Amino acid sequence: MTSRGPIDRHAAWQSLSAHADAMREVHLKELFSESDERHGHFSRRAAGLMLDLSKQRWRDDTLDKLLELARVAQVPEAIKRLLAGERVNRSEDRPALHTALRLPADACLEVEGEDIVPAVHRTLDHMATMVEKFLAGQWRGATGKAITDVVNLGVGGSDLGPLMVTHALADYRPRDVHRVEVHFASTMDGSQLADYLDRLNPETTLFVLSSKSFTTIDTLSNARTAKDWLMGHLVDGDGDHDLVMRQHFIGVSASPEKMSEWGISNANQLEFWEWVGGRYSLWGAIGLPIALTVGMDNFRALLDGAHAMDRHFASAELADNLPVLLALAGIWNVNFLDIRAHSILPYDGRLEYFASYLEQLEMESNGKSVTNDGEKVRYSTCPVLWGQLGPNAQHAFYQLLHQGTQAVECDFIAPMRRYDRVEDEATRKHLKSQHRLTLANCFAQSRLLMLGDEAIDDDGPRPSHKRYHGNQPSTTLLLDRLTPETLGALVALYEHKVFVQATIWDINPFDQWGVELGKKIATQTEQILASREGIDALDASSRGLIEAVWNAEGVG
Amino acid sequence: MTSRGPIDRHAAWQSLSAHADAMREVHLKELFSESDERHGHFSRRAAGLMLDLSKQRWRDDTLDKLLELARVAQVPEAIKRLLAGERVNRSEDRPALHTALRLPADACLEVEGEDIVPAVHRTLDHMATMVEKFLAGQWRGATGKAITDVVNLGVGGSDLGPLMVTHALADYRPRDVHRVEVHFASTMDGSQLADYLDRLNPETTLFVLSSKSFTTIDTLSNARTAKDWLMGHLVDGDGDHDLVMRQHFIGVSASPEKMSEWGISNANQLEFWEWVGGRYSLWGAIGLPIALTVGMDNFRALLDGAHAMDRHFASAELADNLPVLLALAGIWNVNFLDIRAHSILPYDGRLEYFASYLEQLEMESNGKSVTNDGEKVRYSTCPVLWGQLGPNAQHAFYQLLHQGTQAVECDFIAPMRRYDRVEDEATRKHLKSQHRLTLANCFAQSRLLMLGDEAIDDDGPRPSHKRYHGNQPSTTLLLDRLTPETLGALVALYEHKVFVQATIWDINPFDQWGVELGKKIATQTEQILASREGIDALDASSRGLIEAVWNAEGVG
Repeated sequence: MTSRGPIDRHAAWQSLSAHADAMREVHLKELFSESDERHGHFSRRAAGLMLDLSKQRWRDDTLDKLLELARVAQVPEAIKRLLAGERVNRSEDRPALHTALRLPADACLEVEGEDIVPAVHRTLDHMATMVEKFLAGQWRGATGKAITDVVNLGVGGSDLGPLMVTHALADYRPRDVHRVEVHFASTMDGSQLADYLDRLNPETTLFVLSSKSFTTIDTLSNARTAKDWLMGHLVDGDGDHDLVMRQHFIGVSASPEKMSEWGISNANQLEFWEWVGGRYSLWGAIGLPIALTVGMDNFRALLDGAHAMDRHFASAELADNLPVLLALAGIWNVNFLDIRAHSILPYDGRLEYFASYLEQLEMESNGKSVTNDGEKVRYSTCPVLWGQLGPNAQHAFYQLLHQGTQAVECDFIAPMRRYDRVEDEATRKHLKSQHRLTLANCFAQSRLLMLGDEAIDDDGPRPSHKRYHGNQPSTTLLLDRLTPETLGALVALYEHKVFVQATIWDINPFDQWGVELGKKIATQTEQILASREGIDALDASSRGLIEAVWNAEGVG
Repeated sequence: MTSRGPIDRHAAWQSLSAHADAMREVHLKELFSESDERHGHFSRRAAGLMLDLSKQRWRDDTLDKLLELARVAQVPEAIKRLLAGERVNRSEDRPALHTALRLPADACLEVEGEDIVPAVHRTLDHMATMVEKFLAGQWRGATGKAITDVVNLGVGGSDLGPLMVTHALADYRPRDVHRVEVHFASTMDGSQLADYLDRLNPETTLFVLSSKSFTTIDTLSNARTAKDWLMGHLVDGDGDHDLVMRQHFIGVSASPEKMSEWGISNANQLEFWEWVGGRYSLWGAIGLPIALTVGMDNFRALLDGAHAMDRHFASAELADNLPVLLALAGIWNVNFLDIRAHSILPYDGRLEYFASYLEQLEMESNGKSVTNDGEKVRYSTCPVLWGQLGPNAQHAFYQLLHQGTQAVECDFIAPMRRYDRVEDEATRKHLKSQHRLTLANCFAQSRLLMLGDEAIDDDGPRPSHKRYHGNQPSTTLLLDRLTPETLGALVALYEHKVFVQATIWDINPFDQWGVELGKKIATQTEQILASREGIDALDASSRGLIEAVWNAEGVG
């Protein structure tokens, strides 16, 4: 990699800055009045997705300049390095190879002298064997009953990805198999877990411990509580302990040693690798809850969809490359139009957790302010990203989007077709009309955000509190249908978008040093809270808060 | 109300602007080094809550100036007008009387000549009668079986409030009653509902239709699908239809006429009033799902807690008034320090939906840009607000809070005590230690956000990618315990905070004109989508998207 110097010193950046001074004054409705062809002009398709960027506040020359910025930032070279398994994660000196998790079995990817594809597929085959056993009702608990409930204990990347996909693909449950319900417990305080322990039967419940490092205290705290619960209910004699461990726990981690130490039996260990980041890990063993829900065939279809996007990312020209274009729209908004917030608005209830998933993917990856060379950046990186199901958000925070004072970029996401396979005709008709209504709302809202008042003919002038300023930029992403394949492609699209932005900002999207210090300080604080010693070293606020807790405990 | 002119023209605002120029350069760690008493100095207690504002980037004189701003903005007078039932919702020319919903039965509040307290308590008594019938197993479906599942159909204010509170207070389910499970279906596309219809038994399922106007298309679409499902399963002869309507539907609305038209029987209609905003409505009939879950006594305790905060809001001096202080911290951040994002971070899994709830409460109320006099504001109003359970967000987006380039204000929320009532001693011990760990994380994170690198002693200088800039302001809110009372007080605190900010910004927090136009345009768009006529009137992007959908439908 040749050093390219601070990106904001390059002519391409400065040209964009000057251009933005003019564009800031141009309303989206003007851009639409200039040409009748904006949709065709700013839309692209790949891997079952259509990306419409025509409602971004840009013109042809804006995009030309942004593409030039991408070239100056060596985006094409960076894509090659990423996919080839070079050590793009510089602060941790390793590759970032989530794309390798979705390579087909006959592919070959030599990384530092070794083809890693066979190991990837060994794990997939191991997962397949397990899934088959569960769905055949042959994975039995310590008392001989078939497991009916699997609780995934994990947090962050070991929770959000599996949770999001499992929920999104629930329609794809295989029929005629033994039904296994998958649940997720992530919160450190035990709230969710306590609720499951209250409802589930220990004889038929299995826990999956998911943690890349196998040191995540949130997950290990829950796991300890779960273990005690099982042992309390299932263990009579000494021999039973091992049986419970063997029949009621699976581990997923990059550390087999730590799994063994905790007591996960060898046969129940699923491995992944240091070169997969937690928030990029749903494609391998961390995806076990997905595979348990939708079956291994659908899980492999998810990988195929992501791989289709990988191939597109690797081969398409910059100007036709969906992840690159999506990234450039974001760069234009946050760096040149000073739009610091980005809302993710899926118009499909199955994507309920998609915004939470992206919050981690984007903000943990690109919430950085130091370049790969250790210099402080002088420009914005990741905006604040949040979202909600679009139709629900219409009744919650769209008010701010339409009439507030904050500029926000929005991503609208919807499937074009739905409910074709509902068997009962009357129900299908109802549900299909609910889908059409939902699409209509999606299109209507992005139109209104763009045009403001001009989106509708007026009977007369409206009072100012009924007026809409418009000019909020948005992207619309349509999926042919929501299937394992298109969902895989959708997630891969955002993964690569994040990488392209990181490349332009010259930051490392694959580390997360910003979470390390908090863990240390929490450990110290926990010791002080428990021991009632050492509080003097803390600041006045921490002292006050801790003392308030001690006083409350004293009240009894 | 005397007109006060644009708030940013007042000396109090300009003095704050000048003061902010200096304060922007001051790091929070300096403020803490100036005094050892910041916690006591900037903390206040009321209604079972402790508010610690010491980690805001302010000094005594900042707060003095902000209090002066509140006086100039006539906050004390506005509070009186609100609570007295004056027509504070000017654009809709009516009062905003959610506080009246929690007045005790022996109170009296004359609004335009009529005491409204008796009507409020009649509805509460009606709710109590219903709840009693359900929890005694005496509310029976059309085939004579006791109702076991209640599905709330509502969206926005008719969903987020009941959902948030029901989840938060699940520990307070009464024992020894007939168990009724409450579910929530809000999404317009039928996803959630379709899932319930798949799982629930029509004989024992009842639907609550919650909609202030009873015209909300999201809710009515779901209701129609639900009705057809029940009729398809339960109706044989003609007479059954009425029986199903009577035994399987309850309506909650401000429009009895529309409920009757839809077919809700008179006895099953719960009323609320035009003077309650949707997002402020959980305290009355919209709270039925809460009362069904926790019982009527706990529901009344929730009201009592909110009422305690109302009394505090009405009577405490500005400088000791929790809602006022919380509001001023927000004003200081968004208007003077240009911090445009606000994160809500509860450290208690039971508050899982609290951030979503506040997203609506704050952004729908104060996402406005026109003053009460119809002038465009020249300052920021509501920031972008989002959140997640704190411990989970540590593994998701805290990276951006600690090392990103965006300034964010954070609210940390936690109960001081928990799990005291868990019966099994070993489990209690485990869970209490999980709670302590959670508190430790809460305190550690706000400390680190404040101090940055200085929060911990270093072995040596860290490389720049391991450094933390700190200086992110935060508020910590501790509840004695999470009970119906403290939760009521917590929600009321934020309601009043929103009102104080709206008063200072001179905007109306009780209307939501920004959602009206979208409904109209969606209706038009739906007609075009369905009829395939009239597309030419639309912009190029809308045309392209709609044609893509038509093409996809053609593919079959």
